[in-house]
Amino acid sequence: MKILNDPIYGFITIRYSIILNLIDHPYFQRLNRIKQLGLSYLVYPGAHHTRFHHAIGCMHLMQNSLEVLKVKDIEITEDEELGVLIAILLHDIGHGPFSHALEHTLVHGVTHEDISLLLMDKLNKEFDGKLSLAIKIFTNKYKKKFLHQLVSSQLDMDRLDYLKRDSFYSGVSEGVVSSDRIINMLNVYEDELVIEEKGIYSIEKFIVARRLMYWQVYLHKTVLSAENLLVEILKRAIYLARNGGDVHCSPVLKKFLYESYDVSEFEESDILENFTKLDDSDIYSGIKAWCEHSDFTLSSISKSLINRNLPKVLIQREPFEAERIQSLKNQVKESYGITDSEVNHFVISSEIANNAYNALKDKINIKYKDGTIANITEASDNFNIRALTEPVKKYFVCYPKEFRGKW
Amino acid sequence: MKILNDPIYGFITIRYSIILNLIDHPYFQRLNRIKQLGLSYLVYPGAHHTRFHHAIGCMHLMQNSLEVLKVKDIEITEDEELGVLIAILLHDIGHGPFSHALEHTLVHGVTHEDISLLLMDKLNKEFDGKLSLAIKIFTNKYKKKFLHQLVSSQLDMDRLDYLKRDSFYSGVSEGVVSSDRIINMLNVYEDELVIEEKGIYSIEKFIVARRLMYWQVYLHKTVLSAENLLVEILKRAIYLARNGGDVHCSPVLKKFLYESYDVSEFEESDILENFTKLDDSDIYSGIKAWCEHSDFTLSSISKSLINRNLPKVLIQREPFEAERIQSLKNQVKESYGITDSEVNHFVISSEIANNAYNALKDKINIKYKDGTIANITEASDNFNIRALTEPVKKYFVCYPKEFRGKW
Amino acid sequence: MKILNDPIYGFITIRYSIILNLIDHPYFQRLNRIKQLGLSYLVYPGAHHTRFHHAIGCMHLMQNSLEVLKVKDIEITEDEELGVLIAILLHDIGHGPFSHALEHTLVHGVTHEDISLLLMDKLNKEFDGKLSLAIKIFTNKYKKKFLHQLVSSQLDMDRLDYLKRDSFYSGVSEGVVSSDRIINMLNVYEDELVIEEKGIYSIEKFIVARRLMYWQVYLHKTVLSAENLLVEILKRAIYLARNGGDVHCSPVLKKFLYESYDVSEFEESDILENFTKLDDSDIYSGIKAWCEHSDFTLSSISKSLINRNLPKVLIQREPFEAERIQSLKNQVKESYGITDSEVNHFVISSEIANNAYNALKDKINIKYKDGTIANITEASDNFNIRALTEPVKKYFVCYPKEFRGKW
Amino acid sequence: MKILNDPIYGFITIRYSIILNLIDHPYFQRLNRIKQLGLSYLVYPGAHHTRFHHAIGCMHLMQNSLEVLKVKDIEITEDEELGVLIAILLHDIGHGPFSHALEHTLVHGVTHEDISLLLMDKLNKEFDGKLSLAIKIFTNKYKKKFLHQLVSSQLDMDRLDYLKRDSFYSGVSEGVVSSDRIINMLNVYEDELVIEEKGIYSIEKFIVARRLMYWQVYLHKTVLSAENLLVEILKRAIYLARNGGDVHCSPVLKKFLYESYDVSEFEESDILENFTKLDDSDIYSGIKAWCEHSDFTLSSISKSLINRNLPKVLIQREPFEAERIQSLKNQVKESYGITDSEVNHFVISSEIANNAYNALKDKINIKYKDGTIANITEASDNFNIRALTEPVKKYFVCYPKEFRGKW
Repeated sequence: MKILNDPIYGFITIRYSIILNLIDHPYFQRLNRIKQLGLSYLVYPGAHHTRFHHAIGCMHLMQNSLEVLKVKDIEITEDEELGVLIAILLHDIGHGPFSHALEHTLVHGVTHEDISLLLMDKLNKEFDGKLSLAIKIFTNKYKKKFLHQLVSSQLDMDRLDYLKRDSFYSGVSEGVVSSDRIINMLNVYEDELVIEEKGIYSIEKFIVARRLMYWQVYLHKTVLSAENLLVEILKRAIYLARNGGDVHCSPVLKKFLYESYDVSEFEESDILENFTKLDDSDIYSGIKAWCEHSDFTLSSISKSLINRNLPKVLIQREPFEAERIQSLKNQVKESYGITDSEVNHFVISSEIANNAYNALKDKINIKYKDGTIANITEASDNFNIRALTEPVKKYFVCYPKEFRGKW
Repeated sequence: MKILNDPIYGFITIRYSIILNLIDHPYFQRLNRIKQLGLSYLVYPGAHHTRFHHAIGCMHLMQNSLEVLKVKDIEITEDEELGVLIAILLHDIGHGPFSHALEHTLVHGVTHEDISLLLMDKLNKEFDGKLSLAIKIFTNKYKKKFLHQLVSSQLDMDRLDYLKRDSFYSGVSEGVVSSDRIINMLNVYEDELVIEEKGIYSIEKFIVARRLMYWQVYLHKTVLSAENLLVEILKRAIYLARNGGDVHCSPVLKKFLYESYDVSEFEESDILENFTKLDDSDIYSGIKAWCEHSDFTLSSISKSLINRNLPKVLIQREPFEAERIQSLKNQVKESYGITDSEVNHFVISSEIANNAYNALKDKINIKYKDGTIANITEASDNFNIRALTEPVKKYFVCYPKEFRGKW
Repeated sequence: MKILNDPIYGFITIRYSIILNLIDHPYFQRLNRIKQLGLSYLVYPGAHHTRFHHAIGCMHLMQNSLEVLKVKDIEITEDEELGVLIAILLHDIGHGPFSHALEHTLVHGVTHEDISLLLMDKLNKEFDGKLSLAIKIFTNKYKKKFLHQLVSSQLDMDRLDYLKRDSFYSGVSEGVVSSDRIINMLNVYEDELVIEEKGIYSIEKFIVARRLMYWQVYLHKTVLSAENLLVEILKRAIYLARNGGDVHCSPVLKKFLYESYDVSEFEESDILENFTKLDDSDIYSGIKAWCEHSDFTLSSISKSLINRNLPKVLIQREPFEAERIQSLKNQVKESYGITDSEVNHFVISSEIANNAYNALKDKINIKYKDGTIANITEASDNFNIRALTEPVKKYFVCYPKEFRGKW
Repeated sequence: MKILNDPIYGFITIRYSIILNLIDHPYFQRLNRIKQLGLSYLVYPGAHHTRFHHAIGCMHLMQNSLEVLKVKDIEITEDEELGVLIAILLHDIGHGPFSHALEHTLVHGVTHEDISLLLMDKLNKEFDGKLSLAIKIFTNKYKKKFLHQLVSSQLDMDRLDYLKRDSFYSGVSEGVVSSDRIINMLNVYEDELVIEEKGIYSIEKFIVARRLMYWQVYLHKTVLSAENLLVEILKRAIYLARNGGDVHCSPVLKKFLYESYDVSEFEESDILENFTKLDDSDIYSGIKAWCEHSDFTLSSISKSLINRNLPKVLIQREPFEAERIQSLKNQVKESYGITDSEVNHFVISSEIANNAYNALKDKINIKYKDGTIANITEASDNFNIRALTEPVKKYFVCYPKEFRGKW
């Protein structure tokens, strides 16, 4: 029995030695060097928490959920318990530097879930097949579907932990979710995870808190600006690297800067192995070096990020007029003396949508005392929760601050 | 008026534009990439908070203290207010990577306070002399001594914030200090900061909490092991670099790895400027690269840290016998086939002491209702607080885990 | 300057001596003996907080709000500041025992706001007219309307404190409102209190939290059952007292049990004076004595409450069928051998509605950066906040537990 | 399984139906009407928490402790588990109104522990002997002594909960004890409860926190003044009642006002039964009525308490001179025209001592990794914890405020 301190949950107890061994594994230790919220700390200076802590927090909530379900006479064997604990512990092990921010830049066509699965398979070999059940649950191939739902669904432990953790560390106290209460209201009905009637208001609050976190933290406009800038920096560095430039960086980053890999190549042991050594520090030390790079574009946008001299962002519900964007690009091009393709690293225009609860796809089922089941959108009295189900799309444009008056 | 979220204090309001400009300055932004507690996160996974957040927290407490003192009719002009706010904001600006851990390794004979002062002087030029009063207060050359004491003394804002912040983020809730209460009890008597009588118990608690934080967090044996290992890695890298080896690292780190500087050289603008670009990420990406270095010693100890396969630590109140240490070194030497000087990177033996409250030097004065003043060691009824004043010294030895049975 | 500890806000500072004198006044001290949430502690055992603490909490939030507004250059004179602080401090001073639960039972046709005003007038005389401005603000007769809105409106300090306090003490953490953030977003526009654009999500959360608190705490079915029972006990005691019975109770309660007063009688000094001595303890010690009363009905329902043997509650969105209720009444009558009028104290049937945000009447205005103003129902993107505006009505019936199978 | 909200612990789960039945019993429900901290709310307005909530909190901590011990392979049967849970749940069931304040005034020669035991015996009959093991544990007659120590010792659940709860509700955050950590460090060695080595600092903090709570809350001078006044009010009322006066009060209080009982009489069912109906409200409604009593002394001191016009307190480490006290008494006598015995209700002089940890009697044992055991006073390095072991005695005198200048 090993105990970890967690500012959120107090103490987290680790009860299985294989869990401890997985945590001690270099693949998992790497998560200690990957921030959960990427560059959000530029707005919320407390938000330096890591994927490592999040994964352990998820495992803790899973332990609590399993206890609640067992008290309610849901049958869960010890093997299944261990399986689902391992599945949630490793669900994010494939995340790259800065979590989501660089997901599609450094590596193309391979999602972090794909990589998580590749790494679980490798670990399974190392641990003599002891992760097989965990992998079945993770990939939803195990007969008891509710176990997978605990790992990945609208009510999974991932969501419960990250909403709580992100709001805690960012100091946005309004995002706090009562994970305790929701967990106490969990039950299983016809092999589906359900919430007992008494938990309706907690679920409403959960959906509203999530929405708030999206707009106030995850898609905060300064975060948006910083993370888009980060993507542009990497894109430019990759472009230069692959076109004969010399882009100083750490050996592990070099592998991904100078070459691109598809899924099949990725599975090759040395690319994957290399990936397991990549973390936020490679990106930071790279960008800091690039501040002095001879390429004007790369050095400019690198300095803009490192010195937190971030692009100005405009954001609105309707698309921006193409001419206005083009006109701004022309001014930037002219002023900086750069090319058409270079200007796209300075003036960025795109769209975002919050990942809202989707009533049709992602149903949360409520179980009434009389045994009937209803989707939360029907169960919730008079609260037009359906309104929350349509994702909101917004449009934004970022450009260097000095062109503020030129829009 | 700008508002920042702080998980500890809720909201922090920034009221002066010069403060905002200093925070936005690249020198200060760098602190966002320097962990307050170095490698403590290897034991307390929540402890990823930064010097940046700490400095802002100190400034917040300073604001509160000034308000309390002004209500108690202590005269503080607006210039003095701004001066002392700037002094506390910048008091740690000279910290290098991993805060204290590398202070005497990367840079010799120049303390972080020296560097803080050098940087304040540079900023003072950049800000047209507006930091002059802050510097006077920081260096204790200003007539009102209590202002300096708010920045640096047994009851300074630095201590109040770091004890609170470190216990909060590490999850060691017992270290929590009631900074609010202590601040409310502050007063000034004959130009000295004093605590009003009612605050005696809070001060006792503060001293006990600090002692607890030392042994439970700052000098936790696993942290000790990791930070000593970190120092050895840097020492070895420096040795190799300065003796013709090729030690891959970022350009800014290279400057400090390949050469040493004394204070006078440090003042030269480009060394100092270079220092302001150095942060934790340079060390991490360096160490990760060194895991593959051809030097057996450097790669071994680098891997030991990165994969959290840390040395075993023994710790006791008496010195270890020299022969036992030598005997262990011999075994390690033989087993690894390394030299006398190399083995010192694997078997580390030294001593530590907690930075206890020193009753003679660091007095905390209590002011009674009748106007008399007493040192806390006399004021505290029957609590032998004097016992707390002698620093405790402990001895430790670290060695590779695989030699566990060989001690 | 006097400091009070508050588990919620930390320290509350009292800056004006008249405020301290008002708090020390017997009228205000009485609030220490009146629970904020009546009988809710029967469900939430932590909810013993009082009107006293709530009133002081409101004053604290008011202080914070005034500071925020002054920083934003809203002109507020020192007299106005003191006036609005007194107005909020005394807004609930007319509350009787168990706050809302007995409001229309002990006293008819005189609301707690009426009594608050009567008491403020009395205090104004005692304090030589120093409360005149506070009374003007309280009654919305003062020229600056936003000051009244701080005391009574959708965004008043009353609501901010009670939602936070009630959720804190009941342990229903989901009801927590970020009062700090809302207060920081306050502003005044054309003499109306408005919320700045950035605060939209906080307001949404506030409305949702309030709704949750209604159904989970204020109208919790066990609380409903207990508070309706309390009303029936008092009604029966009044009936017996006014019809020649001997109903043992404290002298102050006797005044209200044996006789009824209209508003004009109430203003007579001795009825009002008597009211200022009435608190929860009179009701408790009365009901405990009545457990032994010779009247079967009074003793039965008194014991039911004191021993927490509460009536069973059914609750639904449609009215209950009159025949079913009558049939149950008949069974109870027969079983207990009681009359038609007596049975109404055992079988209670009524309706409840949550006090939802009413978009038309109780608008909360959002102020955009471009200066335009919109009601929150329009401002909130895609969140059908309008849906929250229609109050939800529910029907309930309570009856003795032993008739559980007879419905 | 029933869940209760607790602002401190979040959720408390009740797992045994007999526990639920005991909580629902009128004897236990009465604790809902008895404040844990008597009149402390006059200084700390949040401190209205009850014996009811405390008892349930203790049971919750007991559940956690049992789980920890079982994981450490300490054998605890299900019967023993239930027994020790019941023992802690009922340990305070014999408390009278205002907890300790009136313990030796209303009832003489019978402690609250005696009454707790009498009530447990009665409940045991009602519950068909199911409390027998609980009673054995409570009276330390059960073979496994550590179970009794969990209920009553330096490290019992009572202390852990009350320190935490009292500091939480009073808002004195410095008194907070890390009950979680202490519980996780519990172990059993040779049938004695011990703390594992790692918990030393937590125990030190626990001892210091307790000491702080004594002086800052339990023995706060205003609380002292109010509680001594309360005792004098009751004494005077008893004197008048037993000497032919008419002292209006509730029927249950009358029983104790008009007559005195020894232990053997107490065991008689109707005195004991009567006691189980007595709570804070009887005292309050009595005192409020006595404000109008014809006896000058009774009405004066009653009004002094109800209107919080409390006596002034002087407190010091040396005894007060008898002549000065007598001189003050003479002045009060003359001014009020009262007798020698009456003046003792106005001028109160006595002593207090904090209930410090007694190193000899109340040892807390530390268990080292190597299996050796030491008392905390020896185990704690250099911290002169022995200094904490001598109780501190202080002397005080209270007298009516109007005589402030006359001392």
